Amino acid sequence: MDKIKVGIIGAGGYGGCGAVELLQNHPHAEIRALIDKQDAGKPISDLYPHLTGFCDLTITAPDDPECPDDFQVVFFATPDGVGQKEAVRWLGRNVKVIDYSGDFRFNDLESYVGYASRIGKSQEHANPALLKQSVYGLAELHRAEISRSSLVGNPGCFAVSCILGLAPAVKTKIIEPQSIICDAKTGVSGAGKTPSPTFHYPARYECMNAYKISGHQHVYEIERELSLLADQDIRITFTPHVVPVSRGILSTIYARLGQGKGIKTAIDAYRDFYRNDPFIRVFGPEKPQASVNVRGSNFCNISLNFDERTGMLIIVSLIDNLVKGQAGSAVQNMNILFGLDETAGLMHPGIYP
Amino acid sequence: MDKIKVGIIGAGGYGGCGAVELLQNHPHAEIRALIDKQDAGKPISDLYPHLTGFCDLTITAPDDPECPDDFQVVFFATPDGVGQKEAVRWLGRNVKVIDYSGDFRFNDLESYVGYASRIGKSQEHANPALLKQSVYGLAELHRAEISRSSLVGNPGCFAVSCILGLAPAVKTKIIEPQSIICDAKTGVSGAGKTPSPTFHYPARYECMNAYKISGHQHVYEIERELSLLADQDIRITFTPHVVPVSRGILSTIYARLGQGKGIKTAIDAYRDFYRNDPFIRVFGPEKPQASVNVRGSNFCNISLNFDERTGMLIIVSLIDNLVKGQAGSAVQNMNILFGLDETAGLMHPGIYP
Amino acid sequence: MDKIKVGIIGAGGYGGCGAVELLQNHPHAEIRALIDKQDAGKPISDLYPHLTGFCDLTITAPDDPECPDDFQVVFFATPDGVGQKEAVRWLGRNVKVIDYSGDFRFNDLESYVGYASRIGKSQEHANPALLKQSVYGLAELHRAEISRSSLVGNPGCFAVSCILGLAPAVKTKIIEPQSIICDAKTGVSGAGKTPSPTFHYPARYECMNAYKISGHQHVYEIERELSLLADQDIRITFTPHVVPVSRGILSTIYARLGQGKGIKTAIDAYRDFYRNDPFIRVFGPEKPQASVNVRGSNFCNISLNFDERTGMLIIVSLIDNLVKGQAGSAVQNMNILFGLDETAGLMHPGIYP
Amino acid sequence: MDKIKVGIIGAGGYGGCGAVELLQNHPHAEIRALIDKQDAGKPISDLYPHLTGFCDLTITAPDDPECPDDFQVVFFATPDGVGQKEAVRWLGRNVKVIDYSGDFRFNDLESYVGYASRIGKSQEHANPALLKQSVYGLAELHRAEISRSSLVGNPGCFAVSCILGLAPAVKTKIIEPQSIICDAKTGVSGAGKTPSPTFHYPARYECMNAYKISGHQHVYEIERELSLLADQDIRITFTPHVVPVSRGILSTIYARLGQGKGIKTAIDAYRDFYRNDPFIRVFGPEKPQASVNVRGSNFCNISLNFDERTGMLIIVSLIDNLVKGQAGSAVQNMNILFGLDETAGLMHPGIYP
Repeated sequence: MDKIKVGIIGAGGYGGCGAVELLQNHPHAEIRALIDKQDAGKPISDLYPHLTGFCDLTITAPDDPECPDDFQVVFFATPDGVGQKEAVRWLGRNVKVIDYSGDFRFNDLESYVGYASRIGKSQEHANPALLKQSVYGLAELHRAEISRSSLVGNPGCFAVSCILGLAPAVKTKIIEPQSIICDAKTGVSGAGKTPSPTFHYPARYECMNAYKISGHQHVYEIERELSLLADQDIRITFTPHVVPVSRGILSTIYARLGQGKGIKTAIDAYRDFYRNDPFIRVFGPEKPQASVNVRGSNFCNISLNFDERTGMLIIVSLIDNLVKGQAGSAVQNMNILFGLDETAGLMHPGIYP
Repeated sequence: MDKIKVGIIGAGGYGGCGAVELLQNHPHAEIRALIDKQDAGKPISDLYPHLTGFCDLTITAPDDPECPDDFQVVFFATPDGVGQKEAVRWLGRNVKVIDYSGDFRFNDLESYVGYASRIGKSQEHANPALLKQSVYGLAELHRAEISRSSLVGNPGCFAVSCILGLAPAVKTKIIEPQSIICDAKTGVSGAGKTPSPTFHYPARYECMNAYKISGHQHVYEIERELSLLADQDIRITFTPHVVPVSRGILSTIYARLGQGKGIKTAIDAYRDFYRNDPFIRVFGPEKPQASVNVRGSNFCNISLNFDERTGMLIIVSLIDNLVKGQAGSAVQNMNILFGLDETAGLMHPGIYP
Repeated sequence: MDKIKVGIIGAGGYGGCGAVELLQNHPHAEIRALIDKQDAGKPISDLYPHLTGFCDLTITAPDDPECPDDFQVVFFATPDGVGQKEAVRWLGRNVKVIDYSGDFRFNDLESYVGYASRIGKSQEHANPALLKQSVYGLAELHRAEISRSSLVGNPGCFAVSCILGLAPAVKTKIIEPQSIICDAKTGVSGAGKTPSPTFHYPARYECMNAYKISGHQHVYEIERELSLLADQDIRITFTPHVVPVSRGILSTIYARLGQGKGIKTAIDAYRDFYRNDPFIRVFGPEKPQASVNVRGSNFCNISLNFDERTGMLIIVSLIDNLVKGQAGSAVQNMNILFGLDETAGLMHPGIYP
Repeated sequence: MDKIKVGIIGAGGYGGCGAVELLQNHPHAEIRALIDKQDAGKPISDLYPHLTGFCDLTITAPDDPECPDDFQVVFFATPDGVGQKEAVRWLGRNVKVIDYSGDFRFNDLESYVGYASRIGKSQEHANPALLKQSVYGLAELHRAEISRSSLVGNPGCFAVSCILGLAPAVKTKIIEPQSIICDAKTGVSGAGKTPSPTFHYPARYECMNAYKISGHQHVYEIERELSLLADQDIRITFTPHVVPVSRGILSTIYARLGQGKGIKTAIDAYRDFYRNDPFIRVFGPEKPQASVNVRGSNFCNISLNFDERTGMLIIVSLIDNLVKGQAGSAVQNMNILFGLDETAGLMHPGIYP
């Protein structure tokens, strides 16, 4: 079989780098072009020297007429606002599109506008007609739709962690749906590659803090997915925190377990729900999990606990924000789009310590 | 005025080191002896070389007959189980006692037993009669009792953070008392000085995890204090986490705000409650706080936030676990015990970055 | 071709974990047994949960009669003193041996004794006859001998970094051989998995220090290899440092460049020397290198610089101490021992950031 | 005595913050104004919230007509190029000036030009006449001149570490002056407060690297001071490195000890040279030192070692780059300028861990 030809737009950011790391070694895909409006003319291995000898492709400007365009799939590893303008050009030529941003995470304009207002973007969408075609790219929930689609909105990193942590409980209605609190902790790489005073090394050293309290944009997609699963409107309290590591999201999720239910109910529900999902690992209270257990890999580890004194189910959901939370999910979606083994190029344990 | 003579038992641990840092520069106190069963014969500055020239006292074994004992106050910077055996000896000679452990945080045996069972200690207390005399050493809540007492049970680090973060809300009844969830994140120094596989540097690097989910021993003193404030039984859900920094506790606390109340209600309640407390700084949502803001200082910074969508009050409470969470509170208690200015030797901002 | 059957002795340490990470995905090798005197009966994925689903083999005690022993090669991922006692048992059955410690890094007893005295071990070797058979497992220098051998002494991590950083300069005699100074910085994982006060997380946070100044045991093998290359006795000054990261060695090496020589001489010599070495990447001054460029990979990046003012060649040599400095070199040696492609199972770029 | 009135220009950077930390608690000085062209109108405690309640002065723009100017001393905590333009204005009004940058570290234009060319600044000096008046602000070497001066060029952080580490050896001629190699490791705060891709948190995590190899600008002042001490021209090889901590410089310094000399010669020379210097602590090989030993304090710890095999003296010199390497030295210089006790406001041990 010929390898799938991939173009990566926004290749110079962390999301692009992550895709290159995974695709340079993918058995059924090959990178045809790395496109970025910054750093055009430089080999990607100048930006990311660990790639030297693995991928030394030169970055091309998006408007460079000599840029290859014979792709079968395009990754938009770009911020909000880019994919919604450019996707149509590729879709029109039968090229599939996977977008990392919030541009295609919503099927209707109203939801998109709610999201966009949170990130201070113009509330207009450049191509609202495309919203209906798009599929939310969380494979564990939408595998079948993704396989029939051409346009995937890759989920937000916090959303991956919280939705996967809650889906079985919400779907099987073992928790009270209005009692959900998500306390999420992320490493700094989630903020991307662009330097800022907040993420300057000395400013961040030995520093932890909550931010965007009650105002983070990922809440929208979490609530949408949970509401679909529950078949009722769900609102959550969500507080993101930054802790001084590079990679990793640990979400501690609290929800009141229904009357008469206990930890076994929860474990059974989760193991059943995820029985065919190669990247989900479910653990009971006897095996607490740490973020290093998923560092560098595409896994989501879910640890289930029950506080008998208060009746709360306490779910700890762990991912690597740059893999399962971003580039790994994108490659997983690509595999599904093209009918490949969903795990192709992704079955690595990461490194420790 | 002569300086207060202080003896520190368990001087070689982090809690002892913290006390030495603060007391070597205290205007009204002087360290008379550093006592530890380990490292006897070594100057403290061999263990903690940054103290060289500031405090070079030699560590004495507890059973050394030449150990000075003309103290006015003894700090037991020791693990659970030591102070309960030894305190009586000092109290009988009119020496005041401040104990860092859980040995004197409870006034009745039943509560102590509940606590002790959590830490796997024998559930017997070596001197239950002393429990009645002891005062819980959280100055902001028990200043007057401490000033009349001779035996102070210094609070647990998580407890300081959570109780201070909740006291005004509970006391003024602006929150629903059964809705409280405390999601606490601590630096590794909270685990003390003894090495273990869990806190080995490479094992902890880029690692975050929840632990003792629904089973941490500090829950007991938090619930006791909150119940006293509310004049009703309160149970909380409490999840501690370790993040890879050395110092700092950030507790994110969730509680449902009562009908018709908003962020202003909360801010007013907190500012009023803490109006005479020199080490508490209360902030509204416009000034989010980070753990570095209290690193190395005796302050507790409290940041108040309200999620209008869900009605939750979200309180972020920040301390340095080794200062306000341990040695700083101990010195603050000493100041109160001896009628000194409560801030003596403690009014430093810490360092940044 | 059947896969090579591998046994790993000392599987529970970082060196064992590293071997499992690499071998679980190796195209031509399979792990038959994980042997350790600690943690027998536990799956390796209990110790290293990131391996869950990748390698869940149970650890066997070395004296367990049911332990498989049908290996073709044994990795001794054990401390000094173990391999020298046990290797003979395997060699006698035609099983090849790769030992991580200093037990087989020297061909004669006198050199071994010099080494052993540095680490406070008994100066006797349990099987001096084996020393003559053994080969020093730095593939870039001893590939041919390794391919003909059955007993490989895997090199020390600092030694890998310093020898590779100096070999071309010493061999081509472009530097003054008695002017060499190696200033090496390592991450903490180099100290292994056993906790100690020195490597306790809080003690190590924001801490850097030199240690074993002028007394580190790796000096011996560095000097031996350099002397062989130069065909004259070479002594070096070597100072190791610990910096608070988990992985990585950066060695800054100073040597006086010979009269009339410049940076181009050096670059040419290095590129030529390493022209057939797949894991060596040589860079000129225009591309300074950082430790993250080799994190998680088997590469050694060498950056060459020249100080015209003082005539010093300044070589920065970078490896991941747990890969090229340990398990990666071991797998590379295994590949050579069995006539496989030297890069089999090792051609990964690592992850960033 | 009235307190000395201090103005800080460039107050918003790390150097300004450090000065505020020290001066807010200084027994004989008070901050009159915080001046910065950025963040004018904000209280300093908005930029550095740990200062809340300690110093809440509002930052004034330099051209604000209402800015106080009744200072007795001005700190220019500004980058190169600012002090040289502005100092004359203050000196003319009898206000003493302490400049953090390289603007006044050199007494003659030629040396300044050599320095300036290294940092890519215009090689012109705005006020060359002032160079002759200026004194190099390393108190341990120039205490008497500083006390008679009005214009102090505060030394570079690397320079403090290397000069103090070498001065006794060079002055007493126990080392060969042309054999000096300085391998320096710094925390990231040395790069200042302005974010950049190089010092973005994820880019720096688990990252160490050498930079400006053979080209760092601090070499000039180190060589000048060493040459003065030796009464002969000295050239050094100097390589700076960045390691991922916030604070601290560890310089490992290599120099060949003269014939017949040993570690005792060196220790005696250093103890004698620094016998009246309150901030220098000299240690022999039995007490190796780590950067945490000086974190947050104004001390320079010097650890002396000798490699008998190669004849090299190995000096490890440790400072906190933001205290002894910057604001602490500035306050020490202020104390000397005004005839105060040199240690006023500076005698703190820092915190651990």
